[in-house]
Amino acid sequence: MRGRNLGVLISGRGSNMLALHDAIADRRLRARMAVVVSNKASAPGLALAAARGIPTAVVESRKGQSRDEHDARVGAVLEEAGIDLVCLAGYMRIVGASFVRRFQGRILNIHPSLLPSFPGLDAQKAALEHGVRVTGCTVHLVDEEVDHGPIVLQSAVEVGADDDVESLSSRILEREHDLYWRAVALVLDGRVRVEGRRARIVPTTA
Amino acid sequence: MRGRNLGVLISGRGSNMLALHDAIADRRLRARMAVVVSNKASAPGLALAAARGIPTAVVESRKGQSRDEHDARVGAVLEEAGIDLVCLAGYMRIVGASFVRRFQGRILNIHPSLLPSFPGLDAQKAALEHGVRVTGCTVHLVDEEVDHGPIVLQSAVEVGADDDVESLSSRILEREHDLYWRAVALVLDGRVRVEGRRARIVPTTA
Repeated sequence: MRGRNLGVLISGRGSNMLALHDAIADRRLRARMAVVVSNKASAPGLALAAARGIPTAVVESRKGQSRDEHDARVGAVLEEAGIDLVCLAGYMRIVGASFVRRFQGRILNIHPSLLPSFPGLDAQKAALEHGVRVTGCTVHLVDEEVDHGPIVLQSAVEVGADDDVESLSSRILEREHDLYWRAVALVLDGRVRVEGRRARIVPTTA
Repeated sequence: MRGRNLGVLISGRGSNMLALHDAIADRRLRARMAVVVSNKASAPGLALAAARGIPTAVVESRKGQSRDEHDARVGAVLEEAGIDLVCLAGYMRIVGASFVRRFQGRILNIHPSLLPSFPGLDAQKAALEHGVRVTGCTVHLVDEEVDHGPIVLQSAVEVGADDDVESLSSRILEREHDLYWRAVALVLDGRVRVEGRRARIVPTTA
């Protein structure tokens, strides 16, 4: 990766975006948050980002517009901001193949399960309904299938006998906040080598 | 569960069978290993069980015999031995629907992945090829689908950058040996309540 400019895509609170920004502010993560883009003007994360002085943009869907057309507008905003890495952070739209190609190998997503278990929406609920004892979260490179690309980092979270969707989701989210910035750092430091569907972490070349 | 007699089905080394027997010998697990059954006369675990004084039996497949016919012979051996709980331990045959019904809710299996990820054969290899960072093992009640029934216990194992199938399998196996007896104890103590596809662990009623 040449530079260390992040573009973060959100649709809601943007808590993972804020956790990434905290990591930057605390100097755990050497990067710059160049822009936060939401597909919803009402996303609470937008105001929170703006309050921290992060540039923000809204790219709302337009009636009759295709996925690729929407993605192209988002891509233009990201390139205008000079981003090096795209971080999906609770972005509730599927990004299309042309977007994936445009930012090939430079899009990360965080998902609240140990993929390949429980891809898609409501992963925490699905895990509870399946009755697993261990779930967790995954940061992966985005490819053309949903919640599917090479895995950068995962962290396991135990499911308690008394867990409901809310308690489990909140414990996983806490873990996400500590996982995403580590994965971003690995990618920015050029330590993630994709080989087929696997992402290998290579040692630091000090 | 009325009694505490285990019937263990193996096809190979039977290391999980031996670990269960260790737990009984150490009084971690209050149970009796009533019989070890192998579908292969050459399974090394048979001699190891016999050397410990555990009754053993061989039920080999016969040409032209259906799965149900084979399972019925195994079931007869298990019932003859008065078993209360069937533990599959590296048993390389799929047990059929009539066997599952015969021992309804009284068959456990251990599988070297965090189900529902990587069911079936070579789960450790599949996990490595998928590039997961976390895998593990699962003890579950057996239903009519392979590696599918209600999960009793799971344990997570981290995948290292240098892991190969052998090193990963061996680390998972070590974890299996510490997981299976705990799950057996929960079932024998009547602490596992199946609700739909979930197995709930209920507190001890001292």
